Amino acid sequence: MKKISILGLGYIGLPSAAYYSKFNYHISGYDIDKDHIENLKNSKFDITEPGLSSLLKKQIKSKKLEFVDLLPKSNIYIVCVPTPLKKQKKVFKPDLSYLKHAIKSIKEAGVNTKTLILIESTCPVGTTEKVSKIFSADNFPMIAYCPERVLPGNLLKELASNERVVGGIDSRSTNAAFNFYKNVIDSEVHKTDSNTAEMCKLVENSFRDTNIAFANEISLLSDKVGINAYELINLANKHPRVNILEPGPGVGGHCIAVDPWFLINGFKSSSRLLETSRKVNDFKPKFVLKKLDEEVVSFKKQNNREPKIAILGISFKPDIDDVRESPSLDIAMAAKKNYKDVYVFDPYQKESHDIDICKEEDIFKCDLFLFLVNHTHFHNSKFTKVFHTKNSLDFCNFTKSKVL
Amino acid sequence: MKKISILGLGYIGLPSAAYYSKFNYHISGYDIDKDHIENLKNSKFDITEPGLSSLLKKQIKSKKLEFVDLLPKSNIYIVCVPTPLKKQKKVFKPDLSYLKHAIKSIKEAGVNTKTLILIESTCPVGTTEKVSKIFSADNFPMIAYCPERVLPGNLLKELASNERVVGGIDSRSTNAAFNFYKNVIDSEVHKTDSNTAEMCKLVENSFRDTNIAFANEISLLSDKVGINAYELINLANKHPRVNILEPGPGVGGHCIAVDPWFLINGFKSSSRLLETSRKVNDFKPKFVLKKLDEEVVSFKKQNNREPKIAILGISFKPDIDDVRESPSLDIAMAAKKNYKDVYVFDPYQKESHDIDICKEEDIFKCDLFLFLVNHTHFHNSKFTKVFHTKNSLDFCNFTKSKVL
Repeated sequence: MKKISILGLGYIGLPSAAYYSKFNYHISGYDIDKDHIENLKNSKFDITEPGLSSLLKKQIKSKKLEFVDLLPKSNIYIVCVPTPLKKQKKVFKPDLSYLKHAIKSIKEAGVNTKTLILIESTCPVGTTEKVSKIFSADNFPMIAYCPERVLPGNLLKELASNERVVGGIDSRSTNAAFNFYKNVIDSEVHKTDSNTAEMCKLVENSFRDTNIAFANEISLLSDKVGINAYELINLANKHPRVNILEPGPGVGGHCIAVDPWFLINGFKSSSRLLETSRKVNDFKPKFVLKKLDEEVVSFKKQNNREPKIAILGISFKPDIDDVRESPSLDIAMAAKKNYKDVYVFDPYQKESHDIDICKEEDIFKCDLFLFLVNHTHFHNSKFTKVFHTKNSLDFCNFTKSKVL
Repeated sequence: MKKISILGLGYIGLPSAAYYSKFNYHISGYDIDKDHIENLKNSKFDITEPGLSSLLKKQIKSKKLEFVDLLPKSNIYIVCVPTPLKKQKKVFKPDLSYLKHAIKSIKEAGVNTKTLILIESTCPVGTTEKVSKIFSADNFPMIAYCPERVLPGNLLKELASNERVVGGIDSRSTNAAFNFYKNVIDSEVHKTDSNTAEMCKLVENSFRDTNIAFANEISLLSDKVGINAYELINLANKHPRVNILEPGPGVGGHCIAVDPWFLINGFKSSSRLLETSRKVNDFKPKFVLKKLDEEVVSFKKQNNREPKIAILGISFKPDIDDVRESPSLDIAMAAKKNYKDVYVFDPYQKESHDIDICKEEDIFKCDLFLFLVNHTHFHNSKFTKVFHTKNSLDFCNFTKSKVL
């Protein structure tokens, strides 16, 4: 049985480890965070992804999946480490230190000409070629870039069903990557070179970012004109060649709000649209706070007292617990700072988070409601009653009945 | 039989006149251009739209359609006049003089409370409400804004099959407009107010413009990185939630390159993305000319003489004759100015146009080929041979095999 090591056990690495262990491979899950490994060894999983916990437990029990402190020599290494952005002098630069560290660990664990290294972390174009230079010519492994495209909340299904793009640094690497993914997914695998594969991932998320920015800009324009953005977009989408996304409180998550910077950085003059999209999406939370302030002022005028404000939802999208880069969390934190009585509630969050989360019953004594995340949990008579009877602002299309 | 007058017999008005006359209406086609009316009376049609000529002839013969110099009193007036942009101090402002003139003519021809006025011309938000103010209260007609969404080249089909949005200045107007379109189209009609209907049209075309700008920006970035934009986009579109359009030489036509300005104008601070999209698309022809220049310089170095340059296609999209706002026409004109030997060929253009069109056989003696419009006419062995054996630049995805 071939041995696979997965480096980086976060939102992608951990589900991937569980998923790939269902096939004829032995999987070693490795992470530089020793505490994280210790938790995983004790079956403490901190990711709410449908079906993941039970699959992990099953695969660990079957001995096809284990978690390790030391990276073992393997036939295949899959790199899923983070590549965050560092802000340097107002410019975002990708921090490739985790990736470089992972590649160095792989070299130390041992490679030969039959070893396959698959990089799934998001990278600037040219990274795979660059990092491969550390391997010596006589033991040069096969290396390919293979972006993941999965949607949090539907990860295990999309790992199986999404088409994949694989780009090797040479055709031997491309073919080896092709054969691996062909074996473990139920969909097509497309071959290209590593530069194109790297750019492919960045372009995909930039496309999403620009289209969300378009929706958000339409919501700003609709506000100026005084019409309902959700109704407008619904009508425009009746056009056979138009498909406008939904406006929201901004853009979050670890991909869409981040990846465009990997393209903008270095090609500023050729990426004006991508940069403007980022700015429009980053502006949206400020717009939400401005609208909240208008409501607070109006409430105070009418009631001669400060309103109790309820903020509903802080994750970056509905029905998940992920708050990375979440504009709703930023809005909640700013509101806590700006106003006296602010209650933040999210059914997916425990009290131990970046922000105090109130009990659900505390919400209903509030005066002013800010709907930020369209969690399914909110779709019941208690919340819809609040929406229709109290002062409410809807920035997540909670219902399509109120002007944004 | 109810009488309909159609004001403005251009790309939309003329096909609409032909199409609506198939139903239980008598249609009078009216235009302020007397020569145009004279030509139409003599069955001289200058629009190449599939099926249109034969339908016009048939409907004229059946006496259900006639062309008139004087606007007759009618039950329904449909306004299809142009609303061009005027450049004033570097800012584009919509020129509503034709629309105002049309509304004035309608008032003079005669209206009463049962008259229905349908405005199909593209307008800034609020225009329908504004122009309706000229009617006196006692004879106030029903007025609705009903944007058209048809695709040149497929117009007669889309007039029947596209869903429509109708927005009256009051509910009586909305309902009357709804009933008219419901009677003549095979698809759904959606009711809203006139402001939302006006904005709907602008948003639809702005969506297209931003998405073409995204594709064009990706082509610029791909050029910097040295990868094939068409291959890249093809791969990215394998993502389940990504649908990137095709890059081209720029954006033309009377809608997509124009309509975003109706929104940008007046709301500049809330339309940064729309404005950047326009700038990116307007820059693309300059990029094409730069790439052409690089090829010319390289040819001269290798051959010690000026190349004969062939430019293929000048319309704003494939398989039509329309050159309005066409970036390919602009590129052809600039190339004619910049270089000595430039041959421009487009199978849809006669010699009498804005630019000299060469004979098809002259093309094949050229050295350097610029494919700008992907006309079906070019897809034969003569042109594909040229593409593969001579120096060729492809800006219309003529084949997917060459780097943009």
